[in-house]
Amino acid sequence: MRALVSNDDGIHSPGIEALERAAKAAGFETWVVAPDREQSATSHALTLTRPLRVVKTGERSWVVDGTPTDCVNLAICRILKDVRPDFVFSGINLGPNLGDDVTYSGTVAAAFEGTLLGVPSIAFSLDCRKDGGAGPDFSEAEKVAEEVIRLALSRPMAEDVLWNVNVPEGRPTGIRATRMGRRRYGESVVEKVDPRGRPYYWIGGSHVDTHSDGSDLTTVAEGLVSVTPLHLDLTAYRSLEDLAARLAGSRANGPDRS
Amino acid sequence: MRALVSNDDGIHSPGIEALERAAKAAGFETWVVAPDREQSATSHALTLTRPLRVVKTGERSWVVDGTPTDCVNLAICRILKDVRPDFVFSGINLGPNLGDDVTYSGTVAAAFEGTLLGVPSIAFSLDCRKDGGAGPDFSEAEKVAEEVIRLALSRPMAEDVLWNVNVPEGRPTGIRATRMGRRRYGESVVEKVDPRGRPYYWIGGSHVDTHSDGSDLTTVAEGLVSVTPLHLDLTAYRSLEDLAARLAGSRANGPDRS
Repeated sequence: MRALVSNDDGIHSPGIEALERAAKAAGFETWVVAPDREQSATSHALTLTRPLRVVKTGERSWVVDGTPTDCVNLAICRILKDVRPDFVFSGINLGPNLGDDVTYSGTVAAAFEGTLLGVPSIAFSLDCRKDGGAGPDFSEAEKVAEEVIRLALSRPMAEDVLWNVNVPEGRPTGIRATRMGRRRYGESVVEKVDPRGRPYYWIGGSHVDTHSDGSDLTTVAEGLVSVTPLHLDLTAYRSLEDLAARLAGSRANGPDRS
Repeated sequence: MRALVSNDDGIHSPGIEALERAAKAAGFETWVVAPDREQSATSHALTLTRPLRVVKTGERSWVVDGTPTDCVNLAICRILKDVRPDFVFSGINLGPNLGDDVTYSGTVAAAFEGTLLGVPSIAFSLDCRKDGGAGPDFSEAEKVAEEVIRLALSRPMAEDVLWNVNVPEGRPTGIRATRMGRRRYGESVVEKVDPRGRPYYWIGGSHVDTHSDGSDLTTVAEGLVSVTPLHLDLTAYRSLEDLAARLAGSRANGPDRS
């Protein structure tokens, strides 16, 4: 079995090495196609407006000067075209991807791209915000990754569904199937004044929705591993009927629009 | 009624002026908080790692050196704190936001942020890829925007649901409630060689899923306006049970994990 391994922290992150080891331990031959530098703060869109450079850095390892999504797209459509991977594994991200943040995550975006291209995909992240400077410890997350990969192999994953795995700090006390929670930032914006007397603003204050029982956020906060199944379709189907009824009464509806 | 108007093309885009006019025509007082430059190619995440500058450019107009999401967050949580907007309108984007692309769109992200902060939100985009150089014509999109805004006022929008509106080129022949379609890029990656003999890759070839009846993609391709209700929760609920069953058999499940 072949696994494409990517991430958004870049090829030099210890997290991607931990994920490679986990995949190998679960029986995979690993092929790495990852960004040449950290991409956490950049867009995770496909790069369509400029060409991309691909550099081979090892027997089954390449770097791309693009986003995680670029890496997975180029890997599946070009680099590994003749050796189509059985899985895409993304991570292990340095920092959690929980709640609404998943829509902005490069790590999760790589798994989205794999899913879009028809390859079962799993994203892994480690909650290590409280790192005291000793560097993150990926050892527990590596064990979790191996185990989750084995669970994914036990029977086929649902089509168009990826798994978003988040590992708490320290030793996890369990693992739970969760739903995406609700995180809010910014309800406390800080205003300060710079040395030249000009004001600036800093978006602060993260609020964790502790009322979301069964969410990824509360599960990881309680010290358990969360595994959230995500799909690609954002359509709010329950609202379609109401919307169609409104539009039916619209002037713009029909060929006689004027 | 107050409307917060933002976009991802930046304050100088003719699209945001068209949207302001549409909102005013529908009875709104408009407050503009927009990026100081085009943000289409940047991340739409919140900017948490650096401070943001806010510059007042008019009586009810500000620019922010951040993303569309930053603009909406700062506007609702700080700038307009005492005059909470009744709606957020984002756009009119220069280019469509259809299918899977909506997860990468700054225009839609601004509407997501409004929704997250509890304000009903609508994103507007104009399909103007075939612009021949004369500059985009927002006049039809402006009419559509006014009409859709009036429809949103007719009764409350569903909580946690935003509308993603896409206007076709030319004069629309109707308007339809749609679901998010499936777009694929990159199945044809182009390899070329630069003047110094080094290869480069260009992700190309967009594929529109024409089999998705009722999708936003096919609706706009047919010359109609699409209105897709989107929600924020990506959880694939239908997969939760299967996932929970797998995890129940996992070694990692329970306090005796070793």
